Amino acid sequence: MRIRFTKMQGAGNDFVVLDETRGMLGLTAAQYRFLADRHFGVGADQILTVRPPSQGAAEGVDFQYVIHNADGGEVEQCGNGARCFMRFVREHHLTDKDTVRVETLAGIIEPRMSEDGRVTVDMGPPIFEPARVPFDTAGLDPQPDGSWHTWHLALGTHADSAIVSLAVLSMGNPHAVQVVDNVDTAPVARQGPQIEHHPRFPQRVNAGFMQVVDRTHVKLRVFERGAGETLACGTGACAAVVAGIRLGLLERRVDVQTHGGVLTIGWEGEGHPVLMTGPATTVFEGDIEVPELP
Amino acid sequence: MRIRFTKMQGAGNDFVVLDETRGMLGLTAAQYRFLADRHFGVGADQILTVRPPSQGAAEGVDFQYVIHNADGGEVEQCGNGARCFMRFVREHHLTDKDTVRVETLAGIIEPRMSEDGRVTVDMGPPIFEPARVPFDTAGLDPQPDGSWHTWHLALGTHADSAIVSLAVLSMGNPHAVQVVDNVDTAPVARQGPQIEHHPRFPQRVNAGFMQVVDRTHVKLRVFERGAGETLACGTGACAAVVAGIRLGLLERRVDVQTHGGVLTIGWEGEGHPVLMTGPATTVFEGDIEVPELP
Repeated sequence: MRIRFTKMQGAGNDFVVLDETRGMLGLTAAQYRFLADRHFGVGADQILTVRPPSQGAAEGVDFQYVIHNADGGEVEQCGNGARCFMRFVREHHLTDKDTVRVETLAGIIEPRMSEDGRVTVDMGPPIFEPARVPFDTAGLDPQPDGSWHTWHLALGTHADSAIVSLAVLSMGNPHAVQVVDNVDTAPVARQGPQIEHHPRFPQRVNAGFMQVVDRTHVKLRVFERGAGETLACGTGACAAVVAGIRLGLLERRVDVQTHGGVLTIGWEGEGHPVLMTGPATTVFEGDIEVPELP
Repeated sequence: MRIRFTKMQGAGNDFVVLDETRGMLGLTAAQYRFLADRHFGVGADQILTVRPPSQGAAEGVDFQYVIHNADGGEVEQCGNGARCFMRFVREHHLTDKDTVRVETLAGIIEPRMSEDGRVTVDMGPPIFEPARVPFDTAGLDPQPDGSWHTWHLALGTHADSAIVSLAVLSMGNPHAVQVVDNVDTAPVARQGPQIEHHPRFPQRVNAGFMQVVDRTHVKLRVFERGAGETLACGTGACAAVVAGIRLGLLERRVDVQTHGGVLTIGWEGEGHPVLMTGPATTVFEGDIEVPELP
């Protein structure tokens, strides 16, 4: 099957974007993995597919999108992807609205295009109840920290063990954020997989490593579920800033420096949604023959 | 500037292929780097550009090609690239010949298309004189090994030092090959950069790690100059098999298993060229806006 695709990136987090508004492609998990493969396919952190609203969609919903990771599995939400989605539907003339309503696995979101071409996404409110992250706290005590708390988890084996202090929350997908002195030397490659697969996270977790530069600037690296370390994780930036605000370390609007660029995160406090603003770029357009992969 | 490109791969070694037969694109080193970038550009191990024969080309030369590494620098030769080149000029109807003569920085080569779609490339004879690799042997003694010899080099600092035994030769580009017990656990990430940048290789070197399975099968990993470890290095496979034959370990026709697939290497002995046969595949075609990058 030959398909048309668009390659996009938002703060270096890159996507193969597929248009299913005129019909479903019916790709298998193996075909998503093929598309994401950087040597044998197109190459991307994730595959973002744009669809018409679902049958039972709420009033005023314009689109639906789904995201598949490089491992072929579907994931709930991705802030960088939401910005790329917005530019995609505008550039491909699927809408002329400045704000669209789109269904995702994590609920309805409303990306808004600014005049400067950056896109702001209402990422919804953060979720703090451990059971809804999901995060299994049975037998664990929260450790008071600022006006909130963190959780101490043991990682690794005898020879290579560590206790980490994690702020745990959901932005539609689960996040475990730790504050580090220096993000460049943080043990992302070693601890990332250990945190991602820790048995207390039954749906795995994105592991964030945040260095607080000052009260409105942080540096962040994120080890993403099923994708490894990426240049920038949108929901990871939201989760990190929300955690930093609740721990008393940050103001309500913060620039997050990632390896892929700067994201601006705003949050007015509990009950309010998180607003993320950042860049989104179309890199190239192409055609690819996708092999039969059951 | 908007350009058309083809993404290809040979045994997992992947290329952005550009057609300059109808006019030069005039790309800068920074623009080659951009194209090779896997998040912000197309993404590839190398950029392969097809051109008409040069002004002073020998009789019967059909094309010229040049290869730029992911770091933007031009490199001499690449066997997987030569196969992709052959399929590219056939698929784009730039020739209908089964064998073409093509100028490269390392001299004229003649890829040949088989009926099964695999491509055989005459990679030219290996070069053993250290000065021509180039490899600085001043004050070093060759260590007899089989019917040939290796060179013992010290790597690393006090805390992390090793002596490695290297077979050194050129396939148009410099190679240092070592035999290892198990290619999967070989210290490619640690020793690769140390060997690449060892001061005895004034033009740096490709570092090969070869496990001999039996006299007609090897497993190989190569840390390539300017690119890091790649899934399969064509000239690296040639260099490894030639070294293995001269060291008395291998027959004259050997299957080389790489992470990207199998390459078949044949060599009849000194004075003869090395023949490499393997796959080459067009992955996708696309258009990309290349920014001004001086």
